[in-house]
Amino acid sequence: MPIDPVDLSARLIRCPSVTPEEGGALVLLERLLAEAGFACTRVDRGGVSNLFARWGAKNAARSFGFGGHTDVVPVGDEAAWTHPPFSGLIEDGVLWGRGATDMKTGVAAFVAAAVDFVKDTPPEGAIVFVITGDEEGPAKDGTVAVLDWMEAQGETMSVCLVGEPTSPEVLGDMIKIGRRGSVTFDLVAEGVQGHVAYPHRAKNPLHALVDLLGRMNAQPLDNGTAHFDPTSLQMTTIDCGNQASNVVPARAMARVNIRFNDAHSGASLTEWAEGLVAEVAGATGVKIGLTASISGESFYTAPGPFVDLVSNAIEAECGIRPELSTSGGTSDARFIKNHCPVLEFGLVGKTMHKVDERIEIAQITQLKAVYTRILKGYFV
Amino acid sequence: MPIDPVDLSARLIRCPSVTPEEGGALVLLERLLAEAGFACTRVDRGGVSNLFARWGAKNAARSFGFGGHTDVVPVGDEAAWTHPPFSGLIEDGVLWGRGATDMKTGVAAFVAAAVDFVKDTPPEGAIVFVITGDEEGPAKDGTVAVLDWMEAQGETMSVCLVGEPTSPEVLGDMIKIGRRGSVTFDLVAEGVQGHVAYPHRAKNPLHALVDLLGRMNAQPLDNGTAHFDPTSLQMTTIDCGNQASNVVPARAMARVNIRFNDAHSGASLTEWAEGLVAEVAGATGVKIGLTASISGESFYTAPGPFVDLVSNAIEAECGIRPELSTSGGTSDARFIKNHCPVLEFGLVGKTMHKVDERIEIAQITQLKAVYTRILKGYFV
Repeated sequence: MPIDPVDLSARLIRCPSVTPEEGGALVLLERLLAEAGFACTRVDRGGVSNLFARWGAKNAARSFGFGGHTDVVPVGDEAAWTHPPFSGLIEDGVLWGRGATDMKTGVAAFVAAAVDFVKDTPPEGAIVFVITGDEEGPAKDGTVAVLDWMEAQGETMSVCLVGEPTSPEVLGDMIKIGRRGSVTFDLVAEGVQGHVAYPHRAKNPLHALVDLLGRMNAQPLDNGTAHFDPTSLQMTTIDCGNQASNVVPARAMARVNIRFNDAHSGASLTEWAEGLVAEVAGATGVKIGLTASISGESFYTAPGPFVDLVSNAIEAECGIRPELSTSGGTSDARFIKNHCPVLEFGLVGKTMHKVDERIEIAQITQLKAVYTRILKGYFV
Repeated sequence: MPIDPVDLSARLIRCPSVTPEEGGALVLLERLLAEAGFACTRVDRGGVSNLFARWGAKNAARSFGFGGHTDVVPVGDEAAWTHPPFSGLIEDGVLWGRGATDMKTGVAAFVAAAVDFVKDTPPEGAIVFVITGDEEGPAKDGTVAVLDWMEAQGETMSVCLVGEPTSPEVLGDMIKIGRRGSVTFDLVAEGVQGHVAYPHRAKNPLHALVDLLGRMNAQPLDNGTAHFDPTSLQMTTIDCGNQASNVVPARAMARVNIRFNDAHSGASLTEWAEGLVAEVAGATGVKIGLTASISGESFYTAPGPFVDLVSNAIEAECGIRPELSTSGGTSDARFIKNHCPVLEFGLVGKTMHKVDERIEIAQITQLKAVYTRILKGYFV
């Protein structure tokens, strides 16, 4: 009897696995996969639980990987939810709860597809799962930990499909073939405090920051590339906290985040920012500290057989040809791309991270069908 | 027997008159002046105590006014003081305590000078005191209240000398002949919150503020005028408080203070700022609210007989020709200038508003001598 991905989704939602809590979700999956003949290994690191599972031989020539996570973001204002966030309640064809789109349903759909697939038509090759409990958190001991462990063990994936909710409007309308990179600059300006009536005795750190941020934002960093939208710079905060309107403050800080395409790297943007910092510090005499945090470089999987395989399966099941996109935020695909070609495809994510996260159960069933068709196509 | 301005200063310092507390300081002065034949009136308004006093006839053709305040700023870290801030202790020729420079000593010096002067050589004319308890506070019910009352009563001053500490280095090195104006702009930018990865769905209020502040600060507002330093614009704070580096904030605020000379007015600068706000709001789609608070217009008393009188007296007593300046912050002279020509002259103010405020007692005695010489010169 085939596994119902809706029921499995509901059971996963009932596990309260807010990052970094395992919440029973990985335990449930491990039991199910082990029963289906998968070799399972819990790869826990730094207080985070993760699950590696493989059906087939370790040294198989072809192995298809699925990537995902069972951890979820906090529920927010629990009282504002129509149904309790860990209820996994189904009503009028809709499954409710935290993780209903991001992404316990995606995990349920690919696990259900793979378990049924290996039972019905055992493939020549391997199927691998990389499922983490730390995608919504720092992401340092999640997918990265499993990939590190895999490398040490000689475990491999030939390709990997991440089941994140990638469809903006209708299931099947978008595949992510890559992601922009992300770098955050923390800027701290240290001037000289003083009275506004005696500006020559003070050095205003706000003037330096406004100058610097103005230069950073003066013109677009690029106009987009073949597979990417234009690089986008956003100031996310400026803070000083000076209450006195007659005082030039001593210190102020700002933060800037850049989502960048393949015309840049975290290092090239940091060098660019450091150059502007030096210019402004030199011109104003205000000391400006810059700390760069690169959370991911841009990457993409070029159109080719893997993209065609996924696109064709989607078109066959959903009747729509997916757009190939690199838009949006980051995902754990940024780690997997160092291991093998990676794509992302999943549900419509409109309610992700929100109160009343929910999904039509028809989408879950349809997603399992897409994943099944992809496996069949891969192992033909 | 002449009044010792040092002893009077010490007695005033012992009155704990932190704004808006009267602390006994005005009561002390009122008793002393009444005994010397001054008609005294307490002009209290809005919880603030003020003192008006006049020697001579109300309708005198010539009346010399003195302006000052007995309120003081808070003591700050009391434990950090070498001597208790309300001790009025004299040690090694130095008088210690809050108000030792700003400006119980100035009040003591001009009261002592005037009381002795009217006893020794009763002038043809009047001497008027406007002494407030709200110069260091909001300044709404202080000097303004007394001036309002004077207007209603038909009381006048022909000229007025404010006894604020105006000397930067040595007693006598500077007279304030006017002051720059001051206007504060509170700017609140309301954009549209969003995820940094989807900038087209957000409107970043920080980008609008940085643009606006950059335009405001792009070039000097002027290069100074005959009697004034250049107008100075200082950003005093920018605040947003957004902790999340992946979120475009909805709202941010900034504050700008301008100290302006007679090339501008509070209204002309507000109009200028509103024009820039409209440009930036139009270009960015971010709503920007501007609230202007004009705390004073620029003013000055042109060089002439009154300036010469004060300068000559200083040169005779101190051996130094004072610079005529409009630099520095604001004072209650900004209200008095609507009533009559006003100048400011007083002690070296290096320790004003600081812990361990103190002054050499020789300066106090010398200041009384300057004020006495001014009175003699005025009533020749």
